Amino acid sequence: MKKGCSYGTHRVIEPKGTLPQPAQKIDNTMEIYDNEILIDVQTLNIDSASFTQIKEQANGDVEKIKDIMMDIVKTRGKHQNPVTGSGGMLIGTVEKIGPALEGKTDLKVGDKIATLVSLSLTPLRIDEILEVRKNIDQVDIKGKAILFESGIYAVIPDDIPENLALSVLDVAGAPAQTAKLVKPGDTVVVIGGAGKSGMLCLYEAKKRAGVTGTVICLGHSEKSIERAKKADLADHYIVADATNAVEVMEKVKEVTEGDMADITINCVNVPNTEMASILATKDDGMVYFFSMATSFTKAALGAEGVGKDINMIIGNGYTKGHAKISLQIMRENETLRKIYEELYA
Amino acid sequence: MKKGCSYGTHRVIEPKGTLPQPAQKIDNTMEIYDNEILIDVQTLNIDSASFTQIKEQANGDVEKIKDIMMDIVKTRGKHQNPVTGSGGMLIGTVEKIGPALEGKTDLKVGDKIATLVSLSLTPLRIDEILEVRKNIDQVDIKGKAILFESGIYAVIPDDIPENLALSVLDVAGAPAQTAKLVKPGDTVVVIGGAGKSGMLCLYEAKKRAGVTGTVICLGHSEKSIERAKKADLADHYIVADATNAVEVMEKVKEVTEGDMADITINCVNVPNTEMASILATKDDGMVYFFSMATSFTKAALGAEGVGKDINMIIGNGYTKGHAKISLQIMRENETLRKIYEELYA
Repeated sequence: MKKGCSYGTHRVIEPKGTLPQPAQKIDNTMEIYDNEILIDVQTLNIDSASFTQIKEQANGDVEKIKDIMMDIVKTRGKHQNPVTGSGGMLIGTVEKIGPALEGKTDLKVGDKIATLVSLSLTPLRIDEILEVRKNIDQVDIKGKAILFESGIYAVIPDDIPENLALSVLDVAGAPAQTAKLVKPGDTVVVIGGAGKSGMLCLYEAKKRAGVTGTVICLGHSEKSIERAKKADLADHYIVADATNAVEVMEKVKEVTEGDMADITINCVNVPNTEMASILATKDDGMVYFFSMATSFTKAALGAEGVGKDINMIIGNGYTKGHAKISLQIMRENETLRKIYEELYA
Repeated sequence: MKKGCSYGTHRVIEPKGTLPQPAQKIDNTMEIYDNEILIDVQTLNIDSASFTQIKEQANGDVEKIKDIMMDIVKTRGKHQNPVTGSGGMLIGTVEKIGPALEGKTDLKVGDKIATLVSLSLTPLRIDEILEVRKNIDQVDIKGKAILFESGIYAVIPDDIPENLALSVLDVAGAPAQTAKLVKPGDTVVVIGGAGKSGMLCLYEAKKRAGVTGTVICLGHSEKSIERAKKADLADHYIVADATNAVEVMEKVKEVTEGDMADITINCVNVPNTEMASILATKDDGMVYFFSMATSFTKAALGAEGVGKDINMIIGNGYTKGHAKISLQIMRENETLRKIYEELYA
């Protein structure tokens, strides 16, 4: 049996010397190396920005969506959208564990797990696409995947249904980072607050900011805002177009009485919302970009152009304990759990 | 006197609701609002991409260059090249300061300043073009410009020649951010350490990390590294290909005896160096991306993919005092000043 690198560099086909994520193409042969785990895949949870792009390219046609997905995996050996660069995650059953992992992993054959590393670096083979659930970015397949030694995962808990757990784990980084960033008394704006990751961020923000803090939910429509209101996730609700920086600034100014946000969390997966995030934030404040539609240069040059001395963070999908933190929300908030079950599970 | 918005939205003619930079046309009347600064312009430093386009369109004819420039400003109210979208910066003398800025700005009438916001958002009126210096993209004019309240600038110091000052100011954000981030005892890696912004970052990193810290310069060739060595900017020098994450990781591991970096600063303007930056950094460390070639998704998903819990920052070209901090380097380090004069001024 061949020996593998813990980061999976042994699977990179081109360009050589890179890691599996930035690689153009990786080897998706399903014969495992000594430190790999083989997964029998049940469901792919495609990254929201990626799936939106695929749906648009396919004009919503399910068969075309399937073709595009099959083509991505055939070309790259992984489900990394060539336009957005992003992936998603998967759920499946452990089928084989490489001998070099013995004593190193607590996984056993038959465990149902969600991989918490991106599909953009996960060797994947799709034999057949069984069902496309367009509204929740989930696709059931027949196929296999490989988890590298450094790859993170979560065993699906008994008290939370699979699809619900998967939906939550998909965006686990955002609420966990929020939990770590927000301090008592902070004013927090969540742009895209009524969305999948936005609602979890709001919940954590309110929990951490506490009674002395102010949490503001910004959504694109009254209808979406209603969801967040039902779960009582924020102190203020704003309906605004996140691509209109001036409108967002004025509305945040109004509810904060001119103070603006200590922390702005961008969870809205549409382009050109960098400037709204920057202008919503006070000087010396922080913008946490979780949206995969964020443009690095628009953020960097945008802040410079308006002379804003703020800390802008690239949302890291991983932080210690992120799976535990986010799954716990489903146990703590019954209303939010119901919303999640209706919309995403 | 009319009250203005700090970002200059009151000057936007069309389309309404946008900021001055994306606007098609802004108001370049030289009657100031209460929070604006009127500048008597001496020289426009046209963005290199823009000036190249203008010269080509004019077939190198100076009178035609003048006509094109006059026409841009007449049409848009600012010198934003309609083809490249870019602007440049200007040098001039403060002529009037709006009363709302009293006590807020340290500028006084008569100060010679360089504006550090783009000409693509600066209201400008050109009365006459005096001289076109085709080789260095500089144009002397008779005219006026407006600096918004949020607009950043630097007072040109007496002891640093104008062209040298401009070169340093162009990359001022990086060393100033470095100065603020690095703490005594830190291990700092600067990727692209022998480049224009990299050398200034190394200098600040060494100054702040002090005798208990370790500063590492990573460059792409022995020749470029020689420059940094001559100015004694680092404790260790590594020659490596920054797009080869594994190579960079191994070499940083070697010089840090397995510890890796507390802070990695990426100043190398080539794509696909996100992963090297991430792998060079220890868990709970920080990566500061100053390179404009940084891909947001490659950084975000890259860290997640290898399970690294690190803080990744989008390099903001502006931070308070960035001009002062960076210009001071030219006074403190004679060798570095000479290198800068030779290469960039």
